[in-house]
Amino acid sequence: MTTPPIAAIVLAAGKGTRMQSDLHKVLHPIAGQPMLFHLLDSLDAAGAAQSVVVVGAGADQVEDAVRPRGVRTALQAEQLGTAHAALQARSALADFDGVAIVCFGDTPFLKAGTIAAMVDRLVAADTPRIVMLGFRPDDAKTYGRIIADADGHIARMVEFKDATNEERAINLCNSGVTAVRATDLWPLLDRVGNANAAGEYYLPDIVMLALADGDTAIVVETEADEVIGINSRAELAYAEARWQVSARTAAMAAGVSMVAPETVWLAHDTALGRDVTIEPSVMFGPGVRVANGATIRAFSHLEGASVGEGCEVGPYARLRPGAVLERGAKVGNFVEMKKAVLGEGAKANHLTYLGDAEVGAGANIGAGTITCNYDGFFKYRTNIGAGAFIGSNTALVAPVTIGDGAIVGAGSVVTRDVAPDALALARGEQQTRERWAARFRATMKARKATK
Amino acid sequence: MTTPPIAAIVLAAGKGTRMQSDLHKVLHPIAGQPMLFHLLDSLDAAGAAQSVVVVGAGADQVEDAVRPRGVRTALQAEQLGTAHAALQARSALADFDGVAIVCFGDTPFLKAGTIAAMVDRLVAADTPRIVMLGFRPDDAKTYGRIIADADGHIARMVEFKDATNEERAINLCNSGVTAVRATDLWPLLDRVGNANAAGEYYLPDIVMLALADGDTAIVVETEADEVIGINSRAELAYAEARWQVSARTAAMAAGVSMVAPETVWLAHDTALGRDVTIEPSVMFGPGVRVANGATIRAFSHLEGASVGEGCEVGPYARLRPGAVLERGAKVGNFVEMKKAVLGEGAKANHLTYLGDAEVGAGANIGAGTITCNYDGFFKYRTNIGAGAFIGSNTALVAPVTIGDGAIVGAGSVVTRDVAPDALALARGEQQTRERWAARFRATMKARKATK
Amino acid sequence: MTTPPIAAIVLAAGKGTRMQSDLHKVLHPIAGQPMLFHLLDSLDAAGAAQSVVVVGAGADQVEDAVRPRGVRTALQAEQLGTAHAALQARSALADFDGVAIVCFGDTPFLKAGTIAAMVDRLVAADTPRIVMLGFRPDDAKTYGRIIADADGHIARMVEFKDATNEERAINLCNSGVTAVRATDLWPLLDRVGNANAAGEYYLPDIVMLALADGDTAIVVETEADEVIGINSRAELAYAEARWQVSARTAAMAAGVSMVAPETVWLAHDTALGRDVTIEPSVMFGPGVRVANGATIRAFSHLEGASVGEGCEVGPYARLRPGAVLERGAKVGNFVEMKKAVLGEGAKANHLTYLGDAEVGAGANIGAGTITCNYDGFFKYRTNIGAGAFIGSNTALVAPVTIGDGAIVGAGSVVTRDVAPDALALARGEQQTRERWAARFRATMKARKATK
Repeated sequence: MTTPPIAAIVLAAGKGTRMQSDLHKVLHPIAGQPMLFHLLDSLDAAGAAQSVVVVGAGADQVEDAVRPRGVRTALQAEQLGTAHAALQARSALADFDGVAIVCFGDTPFLKAGTIAAMVDRLVAADTPRIVMLGFRPDDAKTYGRIIADADGHIARMVEFKDATNEERAINLCNSGVTAVRATDLWPLLDRVGNANAAGEYYLPDIVMLALADGDTAIVVETEADEVIGINSRAELAYAEARWQVSARTAAMAAGVSMVAPETVWLAHDTALGRDVTIEPSVMFGPGVRVANGATIRAFSHLEGASVGEGCEVGPYARLRPGAVLERGAKVGNFVEMKKAVLGEGAKANHLTYLGDAEVGAGANIGAGTITCNYDGFFKYRTNIGAGAFIGSNTALVAPVTIGDGAIVGAGSVVTRDVAPDALALARGEQQTRERWAARFRATMKARKATK
Repeated sequence: MTTPPIAAIVLAAGKGTRMQSDLHKVLHPIAGQPMLFHLLDSLDAAGAAQSVVVVGAGADQVEDAVRPRGVRTALQAEQLGTAHAALQARSALADFDGVAIVCFGDTPFLKAGTIAAMVDRLVAADTPRIVMLGFRPDDAKTYGRIIADADGHIARMVEFKDATNEERAINLCNSGVTAVRATDLWPLLDRVGNANAAGEYYLPDIVMLALADGDTAIVVETEADEVIGINSRAELAYAEARWQVSARTAAMAAGVSMVAPETVWLAHDTALGRDVTIEPSVMFGPGVRVANGATIRAFSHLEGASVGEGCEVGPYARLRPGAVLERGAKVGNFVEMKKAVLGEGAKANHLTYLGDAEVGAGANIGAGTITCNYDGFFKYRTNIGAGAFIGSNTALVAPVTIGDGAIVGAGSVVTRDVAPDALALARGEQQTRERWAARFRATMKARKATK
Repeated sequence: MTTPPIAAIVLAAGKGTRMQSDLHKVLHPIAGQPMLFHLLDSLDAAGAAQSVVVVGAGADQVEDAVRPRGVRTALQAEQLGTAHAALQARSALADFDGVAIVCFGDTPFLKAGTIAAMVDRLVAADTPRIVMLGFRPDDAKTYGRIIADADGHIARMVEFKDATNEERAINLCNSGVTAVRATDLWPLLDRVGNANAAGEYYLPDIVMLALADGDTAIVVETEADEVIGINSRAELAYAEARWQVSARTAAMAAGVSMVAPETVWLAHDTALGRDVTIEPSVMFGPGVRVANGATIRAFSHLEGASVGEGCEVGPYARLRPGAVLERGAKVGNFVEMKKAVLGEGAKANHLTYLGDAEVGAGANIGAGTITCNYDGFFKYRTNIGAGAFIGSNTALVAPVTIGDGAIVGAGSVVTRDVAPDALALARGEQQTRERWAARFRATMKARKATK
């Protein structure tokens, strides 16, 4: 059997009131990216050629977020239920005749493999008309139940409030995620009515319609954790925690040591090599790659950074986007790097800001060094040659180049290029006033006494 | 029914030996304030017009702590039991004839609503003589038991060691918290004897005396967590953890995002707006207010600070008391602020100390800027005008004023005022010695080789 | 009875494949030292006069690590089972005729008291030939079972896969830790065969051989947590977590306050005084001692440091090896100390690096002070006298001495000694160009507009 084309209809029109936020619910981040993107990543991985996100309030925010991914949105102007929401994707998918996956923007952990399993089941020999995704939670609460036989053939879908006690005792719950051919979906959705207490058009009703037509509907089961929904900040935090546990466990299995894994926060795309050691309390934003054998010490914060083999970072190192550490480089405490390359074996160990800078191999950047890269209007680059030695408390006023092997004396303000192997000094002469401090203290003590 | 006047007798004379501390047990902090203050806050909220804290060892510490709150102390010189302790408050409350609440300084989470419920019950139609506070813990251990009917009428109070197996099976436990009219309390306390194994005068004995008089005593129940007692540092840490979970949950429900809530520590008075985002590992000391839409990044530490709408703080920002960020201001990594105002949209992004300073709107404070506010005797102020630009690695020797729109060149030491729109430079001239570094390296390598 | 001499045979020849590491499994650290050292510390405490570690792959790493402790290694070139491994220690222990303890390098939490109990039992009146260590885990999984009577007399040892259902229902499991006289051990090991599915020589077989000889073997029981084995990074993290909980609990019981104990990481040798307060998120590397009444604030990182009575450290203080704070000294935010002494009551409150330095009592080190201790080849010392005042943003170019009571002006670069009570200034003159900033802005705005 060949896999049919897949398109996704992502429902995201809920108001998200419980989030108490001006940001659209599905854009709240987990592991450094909008929760919606976790779902879109899974859909991509499952081979969904196109995705349509159905939005209501806050449509602009979602549209701006997904446009760069080539994902479209459709507007559900009124909140008339999930079947009505899914219908809003029809015109966007007018030319599509493969399998549609209806899923939910606030249920971001749906896996590619699960989607694939649903599609496979839909196109299997017995060609059911609909495949639903079910799960068995520890506490089935008020979820709608799926009544099915051991082979997954659905006999009935029932909302909790309409369920008998016997049906409520069944813990196979309906996640709402649905796989159905586009050619079946639209006619079925057209037939869904709203003769219920809420006056809403419910998506699961298409199952009952298909069964009434004499067709079969199938339930595929997955883990309850995969279909957790997020409706509040507390649930968002829970989802983040669950994602982190899973990501840390995978990292450790691949050869990363974490002294206190519960205080290491990874991003969705963090890449950690073998024999990487991470001390407690380290935060990874998106876009970080750490090569084999590197050590990230406590209280470090990395985003968009590349750390080479055997590098040592931190404690208290802040690597911002564009920070690149080549093999064996060291970045120590209270050091910030941004769009800056630290060459092989180079060191910036203390209290330094390297912005828009290139540091050659083996160079030593003294404590308190600052690249002055901004004049209030433009940013400028600093180049520091291989083997150069920048004395402590130095300001390098960009654009400026320090040649290979050059030395800059401590406390200098360097405004002009320094030739290779030269010494540059830019500081005042030391003057001393003998006994001045003693007199000053006497004066100040007297003044203090009179206050 | 009108609420009678309320006075509290807070028992805090225990030695607290298990704390292993020179600090009085009830002064150990939870959420940034002494545990006793949590209780006093509840008593205030419940309308207690006066409170007397009964203290033994360490009385001076407690008296110093509570005096500013207008709370008095009474000394229990000898530890003769809880009834004896309560009696020590008599002279302080000689003129009081309302309802006395006897409670415990090391049981700090008692709620105002619970106190009110006890008082309400005491003055209800059937006017019981005493109202006790009971709770049902998961593990009733060796707590004293309360034998009562379904309506809360107490039949008997029994110490665990005197309890029958049947009585021990009852899990309604005595918290010790008592509501009783002052006019009843003192005579009852006078009648309590000490004919028991420990030779102590026990407060709960007044219940048995009241019952023997033919009066009724009532138990009001509350959650076990509300009456947890603190006797060791481990229990203190547990109480802190419990308080934090509750405070974080409330913050999230009100629209605060926390990536890792278990690593955000709030203080008793932390005020967080809607759509505030808090990254992992952030510590709030007392007196912090964060307005809507602000972001507090990882590893930040705030005390006595005000963060305006849409501000961005951290990572690694330390805001000390008197730090004020106006709308849209930014404080970045390794920056400390103390008694300093950062105007609207102003930025201090890196490695800076702003103390006793006023920074105008839109000003840019370069990396490594330091306000030199102290001469060893007095503190002085720095004023930086709106739109000013302070170059990196600059020392501003206070008192000093940088005018609106002025620019200070990188690496300057500014000791005199700078006029608006002027440029100030205060640094040495750059000198270069060609080939010096190469010769130096040759010399040092030779020296190193001979060592 | 007198305690016989004890020698340990530590088996550590496993490949540790699941660690995914180039570092030998038993060298992965827990609480800041190799897991193997925790076991060696226990063996030392139990009085083991000599220890032999049996290693396979990675032997060099282990040998380098244990040599400084006077511990020898023996090579097991082929992995032929635990009995074969133990035999490799024979030549190293050829002259030893006391009690041999066979234990495991990846089971590091074995206690000295347990070892002593096993030895005591071995030499008790009924002189069993072998003493095994058993434990009863919550989930006995596939551990080998020990069939013994209530007095610990072993009837049979059985591997899980060979066990009957009745035997599997027994939850007394074999830890593998064995106490046996050297004179018994070698002959028994020689008799162990490898006629089993894996073709390996199993250590527990010596028990069956002893029983077959008509001798007795005894099982001594201990807590399951004491014999947890470490085979993966996740198990390593779990062991670390378990160690930390235990160490924090002990510290709190001894009078240390921790606001959030779950975010305080102690090392194997951390020594904390009474009434020490530790804020959240503090990391202790090895070699730290904190005296009574000191406070370690949030986000501090200490290694090899000594903190005196009543000192205040942090937040964001980094104390590296050789940092010594004398009574009442203060180290504040973004300050790093390395091989540096801060005298009684001296302060270094902000953004400072003190390396290879001695600071006298009562001295005040201004914000942004840097000791320039390195010229790329050698390190030099800075001496700051008692009561000296170092202005902010100062570079002290070592070797240099600042006399008692001297003052260094802010922003200075000090290259020559400063006499006691003198004032030193080393900075440029302030120059001003009126209206320059206004013109600059106009130019830059125009340039920006054309870009």
